[in-house]
Amino acid sequence: MSTAGILVIGNEILSGKVVDTNSPYLCRELRGLGVEVERIVTIPDGVEVIAEHVKVMSQTYDFVFTSGGIGPTHDDMTIDGVAAAFGRQVEYSESIASRIARATGKAPTPSQLRMAQVPAGATLLDAGDLWFPLVIVENVYVLPGIPELLRKKFESARERFRGVPFVLKRVYVTQMESEIAEHLDAVLHEFPKLLLGSYPRIQEEAFRVMLTLESRDPGYVKRALDSLLVRLPASAVHKVE
Amino acid sequence: MSTAGILVIGNEILSGKVVDTNSPYLCRELRGLGVEVERIVTIPDGVEVIAEHVKVMSQTYDFVFTSGGIGPTHDDMTIDGVAAAFGRQVEYSESIASRIARATGKAPTPSQLRMAQVPAGATLLDAGDLWFPLVIVENVYVLPGIPELLRKKFESARERFRGVPFVLKRVYVTQMESEIAEHLDAVLHEFPKLLLGSYPRIQEEAFRVMLTLESRDPGYVKRALDSLLVRLPASAVHKVE
Repeated sequence: MSTAGILVIGNEILSGKVVDTNSPYLCRELRGLGVEVERIVTIPDGVEVIAEHVKVMSQTYDFVFTSGGIGPTHDDMTIDGVAAAFGRQVEYSESIASRIARATGKAPTPSQLRMAQVPAGATLLDAGDLWFPLVIVENVYVLPGIPELLRKKFESARERFRGVPFVLKRVYVTQMESEIAEHLDAVLHEFPKLLLGSYPRIQEEAFRVMLTLESRDPGYVKRALDSLLVRLPASAVHKVE
Repeated sequence: MSTAGILVIGNEILSGKVVDTNSPYLCRELRGLGVEVERIVTIPDGVEVIAEHVKVMSQTYDFVFTSGGIGPTHDDMTIDGVAAAFGRQVEYSESIASRIARATGKAPTPSQLRMAQVPAGATLLDAGDLWFPLVIVENVYVLPGIPELLRKKFESARERFRGVPFVLKRVYVTQMESEIAEHLDAVLHEFPKLLLGSYPRIQEEAFRVMLTLESRDPGYVKRALDSLLVRLPASAVHKVE
């Protein structure tokens, strides 16, 4: 039953220039693996604010994923921030420098060598066909902001996170939320451990509310679903999936 | 120079079922109004966790926007959380109850009446053609999770947030980040107050990095842009806008 926190780093998200697609991706993937994401926090580029959040999240959740702030420019502060969170130095990685040289076919420039700096004692994990490895410090997975690269790196490590998956059933209802709220309360009273979501949709034609029923126990979800379907008027159920 | 924090409330976001489009919208709109969003935090449905975050954010930022957790069902806890953050009771609003009755044409059901509960002393602001008002408690704007409704409510209050806007210039560069990093450092050295962003794009054909130059002072941005363009090789500049 592991938990995760996601730390999105970047002024570009907060200023509305770039839409963060990384945290939705991580939420979906982690959920599929049975990991519960408990927090997403988006912060500006800044060593102190990164360090402070990494430290707290690392102590609070089983896995922490950072997104963004890795690279050769002035606004890339994640490595320094993660190092500071754990009171570690940042050190030059000969292994990364030689990967850079192999990838570019020439001696790395000073700017490129900024990317060869990692927190002392970090684990470097090869990530698919990428020349730059996944950097892991304790339970913190340092991921890049570029979505294609983030996904490749996550993919390369995903089996580390696998736990007991959730079973999900969806019920699409043609009534309004306020008309079915009492039935939902009754189901939750009977199945208190059910994760029951109720999501009104105002732009759908065929239904008005999507209900989600979840648990890690498939039998529990099935019994809760049966109980819900008995309570709802048959005409109110558009679809179950 | 006002600041804002956004609190996104909902298990559906954390579990990857729904993608949060509200915080990107708010970031863009607030930036356009000259408000700096300093934090986005996404938390589960829960009165205590909502109260704790609303309290801290309300003390830290000029404006706080909550998204989600408003409605008639068991997982709608934002009103209780906001009330708890300020040590206020939740009380029945005759004004909202009568709006519900007008909108539905009949006496409200108990579930509908859950939506007539607001923190004591809240300001209720009419929001366009919506029957449900925007609820404001001190500097906290309680917005619904449904994107269409959130936007209408934000629109109805937007002039409250207007400050000195940022001026933004974009430069699209055909070189790699590591090749231009030293020029960026030099520009920042000359213009330390410039907000300078550098965003590599690996799926674009025409350019490799988008640079953003921002300030609330139009002349400062112009001088910084001129300085940057002098430093970059002319062949490296794909477009300025």
